[in-house]
Amino acid sequence: MTNFERSGRRAADQLRPIRITRGFTIHAEGSVLIEFGQTRVLCTASVEEKVPPHKRGSGEGWVTAEYGMLPRATHTRGDREAARGKQSGRTQEIQRLIGRSMRAVFDLKKLGERTIQIDCDVLQADGGTRTAAITGAFVAAQDAVTKLIATGKLSESPITGPVAAVSVGIVEGTPLLDLEYVEDVGCDTDMNVVMTGAGHFVEVQGTAEGAAFTRAEMDELLRLAEKGIAELVVLQQESLAA
Amino acid sequence: MTNFERSGRRAADQLRPIRITRGFTIHAEGSVLIEFGQTRVLCTASVEEKVPPHKRGSGEGWVTAEYGMLPRATHTRGDREAARGKQSGRTQEIQRLIGRSMRAVFDLKKLGERTIQIDCDVLQADGGTRTAAITGAFVAAQDAVTKLIATGKLSESPITGPVAAVSVGIVEGTPLLDLEYVEDVGCDTDMNVVMTGAGHFVEVQGTAEGAAFTRAEMDELLRLAEKGIAELVVLQQESLAA
Amino acid sequence: MTNFERSGRRAADQLRPIRITRGFTIHAEGSVLIEFGQTRVLCTASVEEKVPPHKRGSGEGWVTAEYGMLPRATHTRGDREAARGKQSGRTQEIQRLIGRSMRAVFDLKKLGERTIQIDCDVLQADGGTRTAAITGAFVAAQDAVTKLIATGKLSESPITGPVAAVSVGIVEGTPLLDLEYVEDVGCDTDMNVVMTGAGHFVEVQGTAEGAAFTRAEMDELLRLAEKGIAELVVLQQESLAA
Amino acid sequence: MTNFERSGRRAADQLRPIRITRGFTIHAEGSVLIEFGQTRVLCTASVEEKVPPHKRGSGEGWVTAEYGMLPRATHTRGDREAARGKQSGRTQEIQRLIGRSMRAVFDLKKLGERTIQIDCDVLQADGGTRTAAITGAFVAAQDAVTKLIATGKLSESPITGPVAAVSVGIVEGTPLLDLEYVEDVGCDTDMNVVMTGAGHFVEVQGTAEGAAFTRAEMDELLRLAEKGIAELVVLQQESLAA
Amino acid sequence: MTNFERSGRRAADQLRPIRITRGFTIHAEGSVLIEFGQTRVLCTASVEEKVPPHKRGSGEGWVTAEYGMLPRATHTRGDREAARGKQSGRTQEIQRLIGRSMRAVFDLKKLGERTIQIDCDVLQADGGTRTAAITGAFVAAQDAVTKLIATGKLSESPITGPVAAVSVGIVEGTPLLDLEYVEDVGCDTDMNVVMTGAGHFVEVQGTAEGAAFTRAEMDELLRLAEKGIAELVVLQQESLAA
Amino acid sequence: MTNFERSGRRAADQLRPIRITRGFTIHAEGSVLIEFGQTRVLCTASVEEKVPPHKRGSGEGWVTAEYGMLPRATHTRGDREAARGKQSGRTQEIQRLIGRSMRAVFDLKKLGERTIQIDCDVLQADGGTRTAAITGAFVAAQDAVTKLIATGKLSESPITGPVAAVSVGIVEGTPLLDLEYVEDVGCDTDMNVVMTGAGHFVEVQGTAEGAAFTRAEMDELLRLAEKGIAELVVLQQESLAA
Repeated sequence: MTNFERSGRRAADQLRPIRITRGFTIHAEGSVLIEFGQTRVLCTASVEEKVPPHKRGSGEGWVTAEYGMLPRATHTRGDREAARGKQSGRTQEIQRLIGRSMRAVFDLKKLGERTIQIDCDVLQADGGTRTAAITGAFVAAQDAVTKLIATGKLSESPITGPVAAVSVGIVEGTPLLDLEYVEDVGCDTDMNVVMTGAGHFVEVQGTAEGAAFTRAEMDELLRLAEKGIAELVVLQQESLAA
Repeated sequence: MTNFERSGRRAADQLRPIRITRGFTIHAEGSVLIEFGQTRVLCTASVEEKVPPHKRGSGEGWVTAEYGMLPRATHTRGDREAARGKQSGRTQEIQRLIGRSMRAVFDLKKLGERTIQIDCDVLQADGGTRTAAITGAFVAAQDAVTKLIATGKLSESPITGPVAAVSVGIVEGTPLLDLEYVEDVGCDTDMNVVMTGAGHFVEVQGTAEGAAFTRAEMDELLRLAEKGIAELVVLQQESLAA
Repeated sequence: MTNFERSGRRAADQLRPIRITRGFTIHAEGSVLIEFGQTRVLCTASVEEKVPPHKRGSGEGWVTAEYGMLPRATHTRGDREAARGKQSGRTQEIQRLIGRSMRAVFDLKKLGERTIQIDCDVLQADGGTRTAAITGAFVAAQDAVTKLIATGKLSESPITGPVAAVSVGIVEGTPLLDLEYVEDVGCDTDMNVVMTGAGHFVEVQGTAEGAAFTRAEMDELLRLAEKGIAELVVLQQESLAA
Repeated sequence: MTNFERSGRRAADQLRPIRITRGFTIHAEGSVLIEFGQTRVLCTASVEEKVPPHKRGSGEGWVTAEYGMLPRATHTRGDREAARGKQSGRTQEIQRLIGRSMRAVFDLKKLGERTIQIDCDVLQADGGTRTAAITGAFVAAQDAVTKLIATGKLSESPITGPVAAVSVGIVEGTPLLDLEYVEDVGCDTDMNVVMTGAGHFVEVQGTAEGAAFTRAEMDELLRLAEKGIAELVVLQQESLAA
Repeated sequence: MTNFERSGRRAADQLRPIRITRGFTIHAEGSVLIEFGQTRVLCTASVEEKVPPHKRGSGEGWVTAEYGMLPRATHTRGDREAARGKQSGRTQEIQRLIGRSMRAVFDLKKLGERTIQIDCDVLQADGGTRTAAITGAFVAAQDAVTKLIATGKLSESPITGPVAAVSVGIVEGTPLLDLEYVEDVGCDTDMNVVMTGAGHFVEVQGTAEGAAFTRAEMDELLRLAEKGIAELVVLQQESLAA
Repeated sequence: MTNFERSGRRAADQLRPIRITRGFTIHAEGSVLIEFGQTRVLCTASVEEKVPPHKRGSGEGWVTAEYGMLPRATHTRGDREAARGKQSGRTQEIQRLIGRSMRAVFDLKKLGERTIQIDCDVLQADGGTRTAAITGAFVAAQDAVTKLIATGKLSESPITGPVAAVSVGIVEGTPLLDLEYVEDVGCDTDMNVVMTGAGHFVEVQGTAEGAAFTRAEMDELLRLAEKGIAELVVLQQESLAA
């Protein structure tokens, strides 16, 4: 196995520098700018005192997410989805993933009949936007819940624990943690893993872009993901404690 | 771990009865009705002597897929997507998955500048429509390629080997192979696995619908998937040999 | 008038082999696969215990229809309407026709405030898909009504009698009954006729694709249609009696 | 058979007052305001020196039509289709009918590779808008062709003869020619007939809105239509001669 | 400053011949054809006894507008917005402008919970369609209000005074009132001004299409607009008094 | 005239604190975060070596703009336009305004056949987003042009001078410069003014939201705008010189 040389002499099992800025914008109940290296995603959590039709009268709340990318967040400009008149399949896939990941750590009964609407908007993309989005969205959601408790709207937290996500992949035969764009483009296998703070899996989405991958490779990728997510959960907690 | 009782006394690691009917309709280059128990999907492969813009002039071909469900394929009637004017996020997610799975076993250079368009339409749904679709689509694609070779348009097959898919999940604590609808609805964890004939992974998509799942559970689910897909690949080959 | 030679030595006033398979799928209240030769249409009737806005509170029910064609039901693949984001003018015209034809034999007062939603999906096309759809839809609707009576939701049938449809046309000067695709493509005049079991007209839609047609030609076409529909009504009844 | 009393003491087989105003607007190559009583439709014919894709390089031209209704052309305001973002099934059905009717009297080879685009916009509706549209569209198309000949773009007319249309129907048992709105609303059977100047049929579209109609009734309706269209063709010619 | 020669020897500060025809169509509560020279716009005011969601239960009414242009109202045919499936940015800008202009002279409290829906449809365009639309819409709205008072639905008028609009612009250095199409195409600056009968501004929308304009030029343009609108208000009153 | 008390003791003719941050993101040729107090807009300029159809082969380039607002840029969350499937009339109006404003200071001939695509995305809104967008877009466009010159793609600048914009309005009788959200909501008259560095008008868009405004009020508003824009142009130059 040759060693793929990463930018900035990063080790194969090393995260990019992570920065979590809470209160990045003023209106949202939770507003977090999360940076995984050059990837920057603005995650807001908005509380709405209503639920979608399938939850009305159920006594339960809802947590859902939308995802977007500014047209020039990327190397070459992409179409603006609002102008084109529809969200791409990729966008829908990602926002469904973020929503499921958030709901995995929410007790909807305890939330009561209200919605926490997560918005993840990519200001700058350099790989791993969906995993950064999930990791940042959790912090924004936590801030929104704290506000609900502070204002007496909730008496106990509906959040059952942290959730975070990271990408892993095999590039030129080397399993790597937290792929940046140039690695992602060249990788054979790309896997996005979402885990709880307790180290259990919420989502595993692995795709062989080139050659199919073996069970041994999969095991190594899952090990890397477990390591990375454990670190991300610590960073989330430090940010929330600040 | 209690044993969940399956319909028809099916064992936890047993596939539903699988039927593959080639030549189900007359116009398509490949046309396969695949049945996983009560789930019935019509998979057609259409050859078009042109490629999408991103492949023009590349000397390479393309393989892509679309997925649909007849409005009353399900227990209660769903909206017709054509009437509603857009495909749901779920539909797009599935058709992107089918397309990637097919491309995993295609050498696009050898295909030449033409497209194999897969259409998977669910006539009757009882769980596992996307995995049945992938398994059937491979047989339809193989038939289309055989026709291209028979008519002299291709001199060698661009297909590098079989691909098949199955769902696995944990229902009331029991890991099960090939979930039918009632099992899918009640499951804690649902995983769709796509593998090549050589037993390598093409796609792994696991979602904790209820509680997050442990690494041990994941290992057991992957083992079940490996077993099921190995059987499906044999059934594909038997059908193609008939 | 030269005699146009039909495939399979079919006479000018002869229907193609007709097959009606009830219970083709398991979920719908009525589910019929109807075959006019190589044309195969799956017709389902779904009962919904609600009505569209213009019937709410009226005490009356509604019967409506949607029509679709699988992309590769035809010789060359057509666009998937769900992917393109809208139904073609042709599709809308056909589904409006099916809906009106069904309502012609329904007493909406007796149906009560519920909807019978007909779905006609063409699995394989070889001419005459809309007339096969109407003929099959009636059988599916009858099965749905029978179920409503059997479960005590209706005490008497809202159906006033059978309805069936057939195409007629003039090909190379010869008036023909029940056109298949190659005849339809080459015809000068194409007429779709919908009639009740009593032999009265519900819809007549004639179009001169080539030369305009005379009154004498029209009379002959109507005569052929009357003959064909009388036979179809018998086949519907035999199928329902089975 | 009771005699239905028509407004303005109109006889059962009498057209409403017809007015054809050529040159109603200044920009179009043909521009006709046609009035069937209170129904007023503006029909323009625009010449475009290009053809749609399916005619490119064929040496043949194309004639096509679009139809619209101003939101308050009717008793109660209807939605503006441009605002709602799509044309209704009814609108598409009508514009397809107008297009086919015009092409029935055009020799597309003689037209050369150009398009005559017909626009029929209903300024005021009182029944029979589609038949007024066809009758007026022919006059507008004739004016456009005359201009093409006058400017030397065409040496001979591609028009093979006149085409006109009228509605007929059975109201309270009485067959009537040229239904106005109140008659249309109450009718059992409604038929739109398009014929050439030679008295041959181009389109026949009959619908039983209430009871199905007999062959004898159909014969009487066709007789009324033949009478009305013969008169309309004379009025078209008088207008064009003025 | 050279003097730009206008068609028909029109002076720089002279309106085109204005014609206001009330009752142009029969169904709408107010229906006005307004002509600014060759520009002809049909303005209807429809009364609907309901309000949009943001006004429900407020005790206030609403006044809103939609705008459209027949495809061949212009020199070369434009796309039909209903067929294209959306209104252009220009159309939306204009209809929002008309709506705001009407609301500027309406006391929504006095209107009560009902809507006056204005429709402005351009039958023929020769510059200034939006200003003609506003000027005509006021007359149609006045007629609708008069009818509401006559039928006892309103006891006093919610209209606070007249509103009218005109375009002004600088063509080849000469400030001109009420631009026709050829002037509009060649102008450096184009300004649409909406004023009340009292001579106060409701809307000012000035755009430098070529060179930016000075404060002195702006003052002259506003002076021309004041003159033109004062004349239009007189013509509106004369028309309403007729 | 009472004096309206502004937040932060701001004078009536005083701009909010303005901050211009160049190079805010890394991929775009020009990337500027502009802040007018709490209003924050990210403006990027992307160079594309192609032009829209109406400019192809003309030797001229094109400058155009798109505008968006993150869903939670505002006090209460707004719909995501990409999810709703269309841009609002307001969005289209604003992006058309930004595009015209940029083109007012571009010599499209000198730009050559390439497009400068401006994207203005509001991260946080507190009034004046469109004027901040124009002011920031100019700086981003200047950076993109500088890069084109630096890389030898352009030999001289196509920019003819600066352009900037500010809002003015009358709140409780007091004319104010650069309205923030609470002022905008309560204002009687709102005017957006776009001017060149030479002090000439590019756009003037004034709307009476409450009472119509007099000529004297308009003169005072224009004077405030002139003062504010002169200051903004200085700030743009200082930022570009840094």
